Amino acid sequence: MRILGIDPGIAKTGWGVVDYEGRRYRPVSFGVVQTPSSEILEKRIHNIAMSVAKIAQEHQVHAISIEDIFFAKNVASAIGVAKVIGALIHQMLIMELPVHLFTPLQIKQAVTGYGVAEKHQVQEMVRILLKMEKVPSPDHAADSLAAAICYAANSNFNLKIGLQELRI
Amino acid sequence: MRILGIDPGIAKTGWGVVDYEGRRYRPVSFGVVQTPSSEILEKRIHNIAMSVAKIAQEHQVHAISIEDIFFAKNVASAIGVAKVIGALIHQMLIMELPVHLFTPLQIKQAVTGYGVAEKHQVQEMVRILLKMEKVPSPDHAADSLAAAICYAANSNFNLKIGLQELRI
Repeated sequence: MRILGIDPGIAKTGWGVVDYEGRRYRPVSFGVVQTPSSEILEKRIHNIAMSVAKIAQEHQVHAISIEDIFFAKNVASAIGVAKVIGALIHQMLIMELPVHLFTPLQIKQAVTGYGVAEKHQVQEMVRILLKMEKVPSPDHAADSLAAAICYAANSNFNLKIGLQELRI
Repeated sequence: MRILGIDPGIAKTGWGVVDYEGRRYRPVSFGVVQTPSSEILEKRIHNIAMSVAKIAQEHQVHAISIEDIFFAKNVASAIGVAKVIGALIHQMLIMELPVHLFTPLQIKQAVTGYGVAEKHQVQEMVRILLKMEKVPSPDHAADSLAAAICYAANSNFNLKIGLQELRI
């Protein structure tokens, strides 16, 4: 299974593609989509969704995992991120790709085993799970790889649940 | 010029189509797109964007005017609305239609002449400007017609500015 993880944002959207087979992770590619502040918001949102569509297509991904936002101290900034998430959800469903939102807590929990892990601990676990020499950078790309790992870990969990149900 | 106004929301998205020619407004059609709470959020957002795309196409609109959200007491609810707005922006730009966001304040100001107008005053002005017998209902549809009028009023203003510039 090939998963595209997304850390959404107006100025910088991190993306990371991870292969997940036999409970092993392999990094495929990662980066950041940037939009200049000189452009109007509507255009920036559209361009992010189009760029992510291109990445999903080029890497032939099977599913998308997006880091969700549901509360923030800076409401204006959170609303900007939420607009990007809405555009991404719509674009992925146009492409008929499964898309799932995970909260930062769920992602931390899936990657490190506990929800109160520090940012650098999450990134170090991403490095270990993906068998990389260095922590992937920039931060947005590392966070998107964590979102991809979270999707894989949950799909595995769901699969296990499914098997247990079959055994009853 | 034919404008599609949108009052976005996860459960109910109001829409209203208005013709604007020679500084006169004419109501074309209006209604509400509803999504059931039994469906997952991702699917609801996608369905709203697809429904609005169909309305825009059926009525051959020239531009879209969306009531923006940028601050709210209920952050979780605002983030849901923002996701719908993001999906709509992306869909309209896929269709190469001009899309513009207006704040509630801008819409009130354009329709009634002052930004602190009550909701019922805005709706009554919508009724008068569109020469309708009754205030359009439900509320979400009336609000979307107000957003369409706001776009038209601003396009007129921009046109006047344009003409003044040409005369210099």
